[in-house]
Amino acid sequence: MSSDIRKGLIEAFTNNPNQYLSGESLAELLGCSRTAIWKHIEALRQDGFILEAVRKKGYRIISSPEKIVPDNILFGLNTSYIGRNVHFEETVDSTQNIAQKLALEGAVEGTLVVAEEQIGGRGRLERKWQSPKYKGIWMSLILKPAIPIMKTPQLTLLIAVAVVQGIQDVTGVQADIKWPNDLLVNGKKLTGILTEMQADSDRVHSLIIGIGINVNQQLEDFEEELQSSATSIYLETKTSWDRAIIIQGIMKQIEKLYLLYLEKGFYPIKLLWESYSISLGQKVRANTLNGSIFGLAKGITDDGVLLLEDDQGEVHSIYSADILMET
Amino acid sequence: MSSDIRKGLIEAFTNNPNQYLSGESLAELLGCSRTAIWKHIEALRQDGFILEAVRKKGYRIISSPEKIVPDNILFGLNTSYIGRNVHFEETVDSTQNIAQKLALEGAVEGTLVVAEEQIGGRGRLERKWQSPKYKGIWMSLILKPAIPIMKTPQLTLLIAVAVVQGIQDVTGVQADIKWPNDLLVNGKKLTGILTEMQADSDRVHSLIIGIGINVNQQLEDFEEELQSSATSIYLETKTSWDRAIIIQGIMKQIEKLYLLYLEKGFYPIKLLWESYSISLGQKVRANTLNGSIFGLAKGITDDGVLLLEDDQGEVHSIYSADILMET
Repeated sequence: MSSDIRKGLIEAFTNNPNQYLSGESLAELLGCSRTAIWKHIEALRQDGFILEAVRKKGYRIISSPEKIVPDNILFGLNTSYIGRNVHFEETVDSTQNIAQKLALEGAVEGTLVVAEEQIGGRGRLERKWQSPKYKGIWMSLILKPAIPIMKTPQLTLLIAVAVVQGIQDVTGVQADIKWPNDLLVNGKKLTGILTEMQADSDRVHSLIIGIGINVNQQLEDFEEELQSSATSIYLETKTSWDRAIIIQGIMKQIEKLYLLYLEKGFYPIKLLWESYSISLGQKVRANTLNGSIFGLAKGITDDGVLLLEDDQGEVHSIYSADILMET
Repeated sequence: MSSDIRKGLIEAFTNNPNQYLSGESLAELLGCSRTAIWKHIEALRQDGFILEAVRKKGYRIISSPEKIVPDNILFGLNTSYIGRNVHFEETVDSTQNIAQKLALEGAVEGTLVVAEEQIGGRGRLERKWQSPKYKGIWMSLILKPAIPIMKTPQLTLLIAVAVVQGIQDVTGVQADIKWPNDLLVNGKKLTGILTEMQADSDRVHSLIIGIGINVNQQLEDFEEELQSSATSIYLETKTSWDRAIIIQGIMKQIEKLYLLYLEKGFYPIKLLWESYSISLGQKVRANTLNGSIFGLAKGITDDGVLLLEDDQGEVHSIYSADILMET
């Protein structure tokens, strides 16, 4: 695409701060078609500009690309080891893959991998995770708890609580947790968490915790099939956010809860998780690898396993499933 | 060390096949001290020669270094996918580390890493595993069963059974299994197995199974503190073995049991494991991360967990422990 049109667009918005400029007037000003204007507006959006489009008024730039300044993750970071060793990249296949390799090579506990963009972002159950450039927090944290693998679900729940609290502290957005660790706002997905591990039969070597948070996306930044089911902190607050500050807030909460867990065990974490959960006490459908179970989500066990009571009164232990809330 | 003495030694043994040559006569022949002869004999041993030393008679070479010919692992291999993709190296830190990286990079199921020597061989519970050059089988196999992490102990037990059967088929040596997967002959350790994994909360991505087998070691090849507690196939049979053939036998048994497991589940594997176990029905001491429990090894659960009944009649589930048999 012509870089002249792009430069002209940025100039026009700079000269008319906070004003709406119509596609028609921009096309006339720059001597090109309205389709060309629309394409360049989209390109700016994808490069991190936050733009507003209002029918019959036109376009307005709300903010220029906000990039993560890696130093800003450390500057003001209020932890003793979580997130203090930051590995930052512009574009990666997946922060999980990088963290997995770093863990194999002996990375210290608390090592954090952050990227501006993931080409092959992964979610639970081999799903893709959309990670558009400059829009969200795409990061992976390495923890090394001395626990047997049977207890890893506890850490999955701990991270969900810490992310809820970190987001709330910084932005005021209050998310609910859908078992085990989806964060929802009014039923729309704000955050996905993927816990991977390197372990042997006796104990965990490394937990690699992928955290994806939709931060500055506008509705149009989501692929169409996600627009009704996803949300972002921008959409919930009508404000764009410095993602480094949110990362700091989350690192602080993870460290606080992790130290609590190492000292007191899972019980206090369980209480917190239950207080944020929207799954418990609800009728839910759990789609597992071995079939589908419908029932009442009664609670979680001390290992973090979901207990589901079906209509015949039988209680099922759910280790891994997709949970559908029926409303 | 002088390579002339080494050459002279090999020549002397070649010219006197199957005869014992005394240190004194060799020293005289080669014009050096008896200490120099002894040092060179040790060097030959470490390089894979199998030597016998008999008091008042002298030294005899039983066989020259027997190396694994990588092609011979494939030639005659009777499997459809287990062990068919072989990654061979002369010297590695640990075959586990290499297999871990290959698994992250998407290695196919059944990929096998074999080395002649490990500098940093690892066992369970962060112990070292001695892996001297040309003497044993040091290998790591990648499996990708579609199971949740809770079921991985089942695969640990499956591998123990397959290794017992593979060794027995090829060499006639019949080993017992000490829970979960130590292979013993008359109470002496023949084989160690280390199961590591890459997984997420929902399922296993890769199991990386390290198998270390003492094959052609003579007693002097073991470090002194192991000489009373370790054994080798050579020590049990008084014969040196082509390790590639033993690897083939084990790959064949692993594939057979693994296919059985994928089709019929853990039950038939459990019965086989129980038939080889020397732990069950015995009073044992389990040293776990959280302390020591003494009791009767009653059995294993359907997940592969050891059940231990203490003197008060309480049954403990043992996920991870060192088991001491009290005799």
